[in-house]
Amino acid sequence: MVNPPIVMTNAGIDALYSFQALDEHGDYRDIALTGERPLTIYLDKREIVTLMTMGAQPELLTLGYLRNQGLVAEIEDVIAVQVDWGVEAVAVTTRQQVSNIDAKLAKRTVTSGCGQGTMFGDVMASLAQLSVTCPSFSSDVIYQVLSGLQDYNQMYKTAGAVHGCALCSMDGKVDIFVEDVGRHNAVDAISGWMWLEKVSGKNKVFYTTGRLTSEMVIKVAQMAVPLLLSRSGATEMGLQIAQQTGIGLVARAKGKHFLVFNGFEYFLK
Amino acid sequence: MVNPPIVMTNAGIDALYSFQALDEHGDYRDIALTGERPLTIYLDKREIVTLMTMGAQPELLTLGYLRNQGLVAEIEDVIAVQVDWGVEAVAVTTRQQVSNIDAKLAKRTVTSGCGQGTMFGDVMASLAQLSVTCPSFSSDVIYQVLSGLQDYNQMYKTAGAVHGCALCSMDGKVDIFVEDVGRHNAVDAISGWMWLEKVSGKNKVFYTTGRLTSEMVIKVAQMAVPLLLSRSGATEMGLQIAQQTGIGLVARAKGKHFLVFNGFEYFLK
Repeated sequence: MVNPPIVMTNAGIDALYSFQALDEHGDYRDIALTGERPLTIYLDKREIVTLMTMGAQPELLTLGYLRNQGLVAEIEDVIAVQVDWGVEAVAVTTRQQVSNIDAKLAKRTVTSGCGQGTMFGDVMASLAQLSVTCPSFSSDVIYQVLSGLQDYNQMYKTAGAVHGCALCSMDGKVDIFVEDVGRHNAVDAISGWMWLEKVSGKNKVFYTTGRLTSEMVIKVAQMAVPLLLSRSGATEMGLQIAQQTGIGLVARAKGKHFLVFNGFEYFLK
Repeated sequence: MVNPPIVMTNAGIDALYSFQALDEHGDYRDIALTGERPLTIYLDKREIVTLMTMGAQPELLTLGYLRNQGLVAEIEDVIAVQVDWGVEAVAVTTRQQVSNIDAKLAKRTVTSGCGQGTMFGDVMASLAQLSVTCPSFSSDVIYQVLSGLQDYNQMYKTAGAVHGCALCSMDGKVDIFVEDVGRHNAVDAISGWMWLEKVSGKNKVFYTTGRLTSEMVIKVAQMAVPLLLSRSGATEMGLQIAQQTGIGLVARAKGKHFLVFNGFEYFLK
């Protein structure tokens, strides 16, 4: 945990709405809908961005977003993270005013999370510094992680329209599981948690229900997690970035099946 | 078709890569991977954004992006759209230099396509002007559209890691089908096609494999398409926007099943 502690709200909300839809026969069916609301981030009173979020972990999402965009360098710089849903905003106060924020905000890369995510700055240029060492892993490791996750994914099972991400140990213990309407929010919230709790990515496994596009793999590399597991597929650029950074990439992991996309030499069959 | 015609490249690329992965038994398996590459949009020599795209419809994607972000008002303003993959860029030339582009770029909303898409300007504020009239529709209409789409979704079936979107007639005829690594790109490309071909959204059905978050429903409202069909679920805010704009919303449409989320009074069982 960061010291001195950060002043933080605990404003996570239960984002499930009940609703009656009509099925194909014209009969009413009880449906659970995932909530989605805007959250505007203010960094030292400067408006940064509006994220659309389910709202379960707004403080962690904010911290992870600022970390992953390189807008705050050290967690110790953060004094307070205060969410106020009444004005749909979160105010972040830091010890030193961010000096080069305009330069960082000037260059936007809209990436393919949904086709159009946002990454500021020259993240792509700094890939070489993100190399990790993939640990050896067997199919048992993969099955343990998938098994440990079975009790999670609640919102997905109930309401759908969300993505889930988790940070796990190699033995399948789940450190944190986050769902959000977008998979990038879920990743950012986990990154925020690791930053706050000073948890290293070493020997961890990152799990996502979402597709392994370039930005997803970059974010996991930024967290220094050496093994990345997805229920979905990967793009060719996602694979390239895994190859460049050394991340073990396992896709289409579901039930007893999976495909190793990168890290063949670390896979013990 | 717009007149005078726009000078356009035809730089769509085949974005399928073959690759050998290891399956859970340690055996090699031939895999097709979807390509993903950056495309930086320059509008009258001003850098706007970098999109990550599969690259199948770069010109339509560019037009639709500029339209949906409100950065170019009329298709007749566009003189040329020229893609050069060698420099991963597309140059758009317009008749009149965009005067208020800085103001439009200043306000970013990062939306929940992937959790963090991007919408410029005050799109949210102009929702009231986007109201449409939903046509009557029966389960036969839904089944016809789903049936008409069966031959598409090729990249998804082959390589995964993509989303597909389509514009269809009520009788199931597919006007255009676009796949991309992100669902927002696929929507934007269809919007670009409608703009270029001067096709109205009236009596059309929009289909997407992706989730119906707020931004998706807004984009379909911007295209004035009155009926929106998704293979996936919806968020509560996606539903709210459909209710505000009058869009008929049909979710979880797959095989013989679907759920009507909005437009109950237009659904003929």
